[in-house]
Amino acid sequence: MNQSNQILLAHGGGGTLMHTLIRETIASKLKNPILEKFDDSAILNVRRTAGRIAFTTDSYVVKPLFFRGGDIGRLAVSGTVNDLAMQGAKPVVISLSFIIEEGLPLANLQKIVLSIKRTAKEANVFVATGDVKVVQKGGADGLFVNTSGIGFIPKGVNVSSHNAKLGDAVIINGFIADHGISIMCEREGLKFQTQTRSDCAPLAGLVGAILGRIRNIHCMKDPTRGGIASALNEIAQNSEVSIEIDESEIPIREATFAACEMLGLDPLIVANEGKVIVACPAALAPDVVQTMRKHRYGKAAKIIGRVTGKGKPEVILKTAVGGSRIIDMPYGELLPRIC
Amino acid sequence: MNQSNQILLAHGGGGTLMHTLIRETIASKLKNPILEKFDDSAILNVRRTAGRIAFTTDSYVVKPLFFRGGDIGRLAVSGTVNDLAMQGAKPVVISLSFIIEEGLPLANLQKIVLSIKRTAKEANVFVATGDVKVVQKGGADGLFVNTSGIGFIPKGVNVSSHNAKLGDAVIINGFIADHGISIMCEREGLKFQTQTRSDCAPLAGLVGAILGRIRNIHCMKDPTRGGIASALNEIAQNSEVSIEIDESEIPIREATFAACEMLGLDPLIVANEGKVIVACPAALAPDVVQTMRKHRYGKAAKIIGRVTGKGKPEVILKTAVGGSRIIDMPYGELLPRIC
Repeated sequence: MNQSNQILLAHGGGGTLMHTLIRETIASKLKNPILEKFDDSAILNVRRTAGRIAFTTDSYVVKPLFFRGGDIGRLAVSGTVNDLAMQGAKPVVISLSFIIEEGLPLANLQKIVLSIKRTAKEANVFVATGDVKVVQKGGADGLFVNTSGIGFIPKGVNVSSHNAKLGDAVIINGFIADHGISIMCEREGLKFQTQTRSDCAPLAGLVGAILGRIRNIHCMKDPTRGGIASALNEIAQNSEVSIEIDESEIPIREATFAACEMLGLDPLIVANEGKVIVACPAALAPDVVQTMRKHRYGKAAKIIGRVTGKGKPEVILKTAVGGSRIIDMPYGELLPRIC
Repeated sequence: MNQSNQILLAHGGGGTLMHTLIRETIASKLKNPILEKFDDSAILNVRRTAGRIAFTTDSYVVKPLFFRGGDIGRLAVSGTVNDLAMQGAKPVVISLSFIIEEGLPLANLQKIVLSIKRTAKEANVFVATGDVKVVQKGGADGLFVNTSGIGFIPKGVNVSSHNAKLGDAVIINGFIADHGISIMCEREGLKFQTQTRSDCAPLAGLVGAILGRIRNIHCMKDPTRGGIASALNEIAQNSEVSIEIDESEIPIREATFAACEMLGLDPLIVANEGKVIVACPAALAPDVVQTMRKHRYGKAAKIIGRVTGKGKPEVILKTAVGGSRIIDMPYGELLPRIC
């Protein structure tokens, strides 16, 4: 049998070569008894009685595959775990599907699989089922990853982007725009004195800590593509409310802000991959912020605004100099290959 | 706002353009109340008490996107539905994730979405959650599709590739190798007098009909990449049994056989996308075959072999001329972009 340190088209053919790749390079690293059955689907035993399941999917096409603060594997696990967490679900299992371009160094795939393993462990989920496809050179930019996920929603939790209410405080768990800016710097070969790092992280633990203390969270949303501008507009539209944000309260690192200025980017539309926007009754907000700050992914948590009106979906930014402007949903975006 | 009859990079940016594409081109066609919430994950109410859930994922990279007998959309729904059905699960929901290369004609995406809608309806599943990414030209061969799926396994059903038993009959629901051969002809521009068509189809109905009558099915496996050679070897290895197949009993259309001969392909390793191999106690086999034949996707069902031994995983072909040879797991495969 040929040995190869690159992925070959034949690795996707359904034969021995594929089975060896799946078993030795992927499954043996992620090992768990369900994945290792290698059946067409994973069988999960649901012991609880009736309840609510959250189900989500996301494909990841980030370029480069490795970047400061993460890689496509960490991103793929975090992104899907976070989509489940945003509904108040406890993430339980994920699926993992690779589309690999022939010629991808096997060592890169191995590094990514290890990163997936570490991130899944951190998020307390396991990879239950998977798939590998190989496409011809020029077909997939090295590697695309899809992760889908299932989580269970605890009784009494009712978190949704449709659920923000008049009087709610709006909170964020830390610095914005780090992910998009670091991908952009990486891709364009830009070097600043202080380099930014992606904030890419699974938020299941942080969200679990919040919901463990405070059940009455109305809304959570991760501001990924389109940044907090897009996420806040989605909340405003889905909940039919107007939201006011204080520019001076939005946490942003100096280096990230400087890079945005230099690149001519509005940090509000730059992607994040480890942030959550929370809307909850104002009286509970200090407790949410305190709970966030005790967690590694919430050290710079802050109240950044409030829900000020009903019926007219809009997002208003109170600027640092005392003015105000409407933040629109961005149209397209400047950084397409960031997630 | 610009109108475009092609997908632009900006369609993947998280802004208005993306939301319009998702709402108008995709979700409005697949419409159902869960998908239309546009939350980060879909919430499913599980009304039953404790039970088993099947969970699976697959990415589809077939080229060309449209082929005789199907398209990437029909393939993506069928493949995932079939992976669930192979565990005896009743498929319930699927997720849908598109990776689109900029420049894809919008009309092609619309056709594919309609095909997904029709196939999902036929399979009695709904699209609960989805995702769209757009990559630069040269990044994704037009379109890749990932579908993941969830199904529920009825009590008393225990179907697995690990579960074939000595004495079982081995059954297939019809003609082999039609999918792989028609993709190959399409791709290479080959024309034969009688053209083959892909067998691409969701088998949830067929499998449901079988399990509705006969609970004691031991094993089901869809012979996709790597053909029936790969599927039978997986069953043999996972169940630790030897399987004997009668070459003369394997249903294959004349046109497909002729094309295989001309192309120098062994039809046993050519992919199928609407076939299921069933292993069940020999006494139940005639009933399984009769049940299959009453279904549109089982008209040419046949018993093709039997499980003849324990402990030594191998697949033996009794040839039409009275000899026998071992069918190995194929190594790589000749037709990489077939699913």
